Amino acid sequence: MKGGSGAVRPMEGHGAYNRSSRVQAAGLVPAISLLQEAARSVPLPPAPQPLILADYGCSEGRNSIRPIAAAVAILRERTGPSRPISLVFTDLPENDFSALFQTLAEDPESIARSDSQVFACAIGRSYFEQLIPAETLSLGWSSWSVQWLSRVPAKIPDQVQAAYSRDEAARVAFAAQAADDWRAFLSRRATELRPGGQLVVLTMASDERGFGYEPLVRAMYEALEAMVAERFLHARELHAMVIPTVGRSRADFLAPFGSKGEFCGLALGELQIFEGEDRIWNDYERDRNAEAFGAEWARFSRASVFPSLASALESGGAPRSAEFFNRLEAGLAMRLAREPQRMAIPLARMAFSRTAT
Amino acid sequence: MKGGSGAVRPMEGHGAYNRSSRVQAAGLVPAISLLQEAARSVPLPPAPQPLILADYGCSEGRNSIRPIAAAVAILRERTGPSRPISLVFTDLPENDFSALFQTLAEDPESIARSDSQVFACAIGRSYFEQLIPAETLSLGWSSWSVQWLSRVPAKIPDQVQAAYSRDEAARVAFAAQAADDWRAFLSRRATELRPGGQLVVLTMASDERGFGYEPLVRAMYEALEAMVAERFLHARELHAMVIPTVGRSRADFLAPFGSKGEFCGLALGELQIFEGEDRIWNDYERDRNAEAFGAEWARFSRASVFPSLASALESGGAPRSAEFFNRLEAGLAMRLAREPQRMAIPLARMAFSRTAT
Repeated sequence: MKGGSGAVRPMEGHGAYNRSSRVQAAGLVPAISLLQEAARSVPLPPAPQPLILADYGCSEGRNSIRPIAAAVAILRERTGPSRPISLVFTDLPENDFSALFQTLAEDPESIARSDSQVFACAIGRSYFEQLIPAETLSLGWSSWSVQWLSRVPAKIPDQVQAAYSRDEAARVAFAAQAADDWRAFLSRRATELRPGGQLVVLTMASDERGFGYEPLVRAMYEALEAMVAERFLHARELHAMVIPTVGRSRADFLAPFGSKGEFCGLALGELQIFEGEDRIWNDYERDRNAEAFGAEWARFSRASVFPSLASALESGGAPRSAEFFNRLEAGLAMRLAREPQRMAIPLARMAFSRTAT
Repeated sequence: MKGGSGAVRPMEGHGAYNRSSRVQAAGLVPAISLLQEAARSVPLPPAPQPLILADYGCSEGRNSIRPIAAAVAILRERTGPSRPISLVFTDLPENDFSALFQTLAEDPESIARSDSQVFACAIGRSYFEQLIPAETLSLGWSSWSVQWLSRVPAKIPDQVQAAYSRDEAARVAFAAQAADDWRAFLSRRATELRPGGQLVVLTMASDERGFGYEPLVRAMYEALEAMVAERFLHARELHAMVIPTVGRSRADFLAPFGSKGEFCGLALGELQIFEGEDRIWNDYERDRNAEAFGAEWARFSRASVFPSLASALESGGAPRSAEFFNRLEAGLAMRLAREPQRMAIPLARMAFSRTAT
């Protein structure tokens, strides 16, 4: 649940996301093969036009290193060693770009480090706007990002995650925002892509069983309610807390495309909803360490969604915010350790191509 | 004295530089006209090749907004409204890029905000490396940056600024590093520039009277010595403190160019050493407020060079570092207020063009 480049995801920063993203790392593996296929088949712009690959919602870069390196390796076979390849990493202005640049410079698998003709840059601006000149993008990639909404469309009276709310109005407002944002994301990328250019997206989804993560979401809300009971949180603060993420269904993803399977010149090539691997559960099955199970999922949640929750704190500044993070992480870990369950992680992987104009 | 994209300039961050850069803002005015001339005369790449303007050592962007907007306004007259223009802002990985992106999005004079066909990105990597693909840069700009060395070449036994040291070995080591860095900076830009592309540089310099800033440098060293006497600083810490900036002379700037006036395909078009306007002194002449004079110069120094000094602190972590900043700022302000003097601010403005290959 990282890395939106919408407009609402606050971040803890200082490399927190880079350190706690195992769940995402596992989930994106099946999408890398789609990106590799795209790198194999995408038409290359004639030199000296730039060859541009962009990562939308890169966060601090850790989970970008491997897919981008895999794509560049294939492009490199096609171009030979001397053609420059430009990498564009985008996220919100408040993203920790210093961590991104350090990851690019230092991670042993970073292609920006090992290939002298790979040039990386970053754009700190919402991807609901056009970020690069029209028809210049050859290959777009976005993983674990477009589930973040561009804004919080409504408060949720009985939950922090709309998918588990019983409030019809909240669920409707989230669905409407999700639909708007999906169209906005796709239409901006359609503008940026060259004819024949391709876009691969991995994101959270809903399958026939729904949004997933149920034990995690329930435990998080319980832990927050306990913090109200302990008078650490005001009820009003809890009421304002929202995780503005959505799991779109197959129908939601398809909605903009109509009967011709095309939207703003983007054609849908592939859409698969699949189940992400729960590596934390796998560890638990091996070692039966319930505390480690709880601690790992709590750490994941801290890095991915606690900053959104903490933005509702009304007072106390940085010290109270830090204590909020620590208390919620502990409360969540404890609850999850009581009865470890495999987490449902519904994901979607998609590939689009820009039709010739 | 801001904004090297060498390898040594630490930064206080959180917008500190943006808030305390009046001296630099005044100093760069005479260089903007050179940049405008370059924007008027530089050959434009045929579409759909990108039209790229880069700012080397952008810091948090405040002092980039005006020169970049002035250059783009001229390019825009030449291209018409629809041609995309790419802006590349570079600085060290640890620069506050969030502040940069916020400045670009929010400053009323930001051209990236007002022109929908201007696309900005950032590169967090030393400009002593090649940062963008060869022969893609139309217009380069660097202000108040290349006076920062890529590394600290030597300790200085009797000063923090080599220009005011009596230690011959230290002065020689700084001069050698300055010569190496200047060649490295120019040769990388020569690679990046398109044939006919132009580069405009504003940087600190030395004139017939030397490095300038003498009352400031002397007062800073006195304040540091007082902190040793008060046992706030260890003598060993003071000894390790260095501001790794240099003011190159006309001869230093010319050295790489040889008799043909060319280096790595770069031809020197103009080189002028001039005196920067001391706006803080101008204020003092008007209002005779000696305390404000001291406070303003101390604030300037805090944002520009205190981080370099603080990197020599051996213990005490963030709280001691914060106290170091506050004490040094107070000690410096007090000393400068005793006897306000106009500060010599020798600067150099230069324009280069890439010869056809």
